[in-house]
Amino acid sequence: MGFIETLGIDIIENHADGVSIECLVRKEFFNFRGVVHGGLTASVADSAMGIAVSRHYGPDTPVTTVEMKINYLRPVAAGKLVARSRIVRDGKRICVGQVDVRDGDDNLVAIALTTFAVLKPAS
Amino acid sequence: MGFIETLGIDIIENHADGVSIECLVRKEFFNFRGVVHGGLTASVADSAMGIAVSRHYGPDTPVTTVEMKINYLRPVAAGKLVARSRIVRDGKRICVGQVDVRDGDDNLVAIALTTFAVLKPAS
Amino acid sequence: MGFIETLGIDIIENHADGVSIECLVRKEFFNFRGVVHGGLTASVADSAMGIAVSRHYGPDTPVTTVEMKINYLRPVAAGKLVARSRIVRDGKRICVGQVDVRDGDDNLVAIALTTFAVLKPAS
Amino acid sequence: MGFIETLGIDIIENHADGVSIECLVRKEFFNFRGVVHGGLTASVADSAMGIAVSRHYGPDTPVTTVEMKINYLRPVAAGKLVARSRIVRDGKRICVGQVDVRDGDDNLVAIALTTFAVLKPAS
Repeated sequence: MGFIETLGIDIIENHADGVSIECLVRKEFFNFRGVVHGGLTASVADSAMGIAVSRHYGPDTPVTTVEMKINYLRPVAAGKLVARSRIVRDGKRICVGQVDVRDGDDNLVAIALTTFAVLKPAS
Repeated sequence: MGFIETLGIDIIENHADGVSIECLVRKEFFNFRGVVHGGLTASVADSAMGIAVSRHYGPDTPVTTVEMKINYLRPVAAGKLVARSRIVRDGKRICVGQVDVRDGDDNLVAIALTTFAVLKPAS
Repeated sequence: MGFIETLGIDIIENHADGVSIECLVRKEFFNFRGVVHGGLTASVADSAMGIAVSRHYGPDTPVTTVEMKINYLRPVAAGKLVARSRIVRDGKRICVGQVDVRDGDDNLVAIALTTFAVLKPAS
Repeated sequence: MGFIETLGIDIIENHADGVSIECLVRKEFFNFRGVVHGGLTASVADSAMGIAVSRHYGPDTPVTTVEMKINYLRPVAAGKLVARSRIVRDGKRICVGQVDVRDGDDNLVAIALTTFAVLKPAS
């Protein structure tokens, strides 16, 4: 059981340019101020992009996160996180994507911009 | 029990300008390629900075992560992550810090640059 | 004459949530590979956001760039850069925005995510 | 004459892991608040890293900026900017570096974290 399963992340919708995933907020995700830890939100955003990039390039082309930048816009204390990833550039070596993270009331709570490296296909 | 405890993060050293924390790698932190999920590394980096900033400004001054950017330099498949945070600018409103994340063999595995907002003291 | 005038940046459209600006490509903006230097694109993106944030908060509220992250998606060797900024969160202390930069053929050439600090009004 | 020459950037020292460059502050670099425009500082930081990466990989290996993130720590109104780049990871495909930008009084005024793509050697 990996990190995505540990966090309880589920894919809820596939899009032409990305994916929407969901993660139910649990108290074990909180920081000491009683809101969701930024690391959890970053994990959900990274997962949304990773799933989108893996699907886009296919199972024979390994991809890996080079870097991610995330802005936290509002604290989340209950409900769920829904992350929608969008590939904005699908190069041969580099793939760039953007992720919106919303809470259960559809408020934008975080926005991320991330870069993946596309490794050579195995064959 | 919050996210830091859920992930098993421990403070191992206090420094004048930051803190060193440690997180033992567990299989439940892996992505589907069998290495530590980027979200876990981001969570450890964010925690190292959050703890440093909270201590620096003190218990009466709430702080919150505005944004974080992290570069992943090497995959990690075993051992531990050690994150060392450094405050590089401690403004009245904005605090900026840098975090080095190393594995158990002291290889640099990630580097982060992050911004916190310093909110008004309660009194 | 400031940097915006030095670079020849013009505002071409105001939007409810941001602004569109334009910068004609000149050879003096090139790097040694004969394409626009990343610093020029970053300058245009930062300007698009700075103008939007200044207008949004008004002349009595100083704002300042805290940080910017920009991904370069395609090289540009001729024509113009058009940057469209969008404020995604207008907090009391922190304003976050996103900028799309396109070339004269409407190709997305860069995408930026940036944070501004909103300082106290003078009065 | 390219952007680096337009801005008046000079290399002042080579290091094992990077380079130090200098740019004299001119009024034409100012924003409307009378301090150096963030785009100028970003241009200097990007140049410091680009020069370091180009030298490290050599003239037959083209490199290109994938992305840059920069935090602005203090405004600069006079004197000079000195940027010191450091390569922190020199992979086969991806090179990651960090840049410190200081003013003429040796105050840290900006810090950047940036990613370059290493393209295949021509031969």
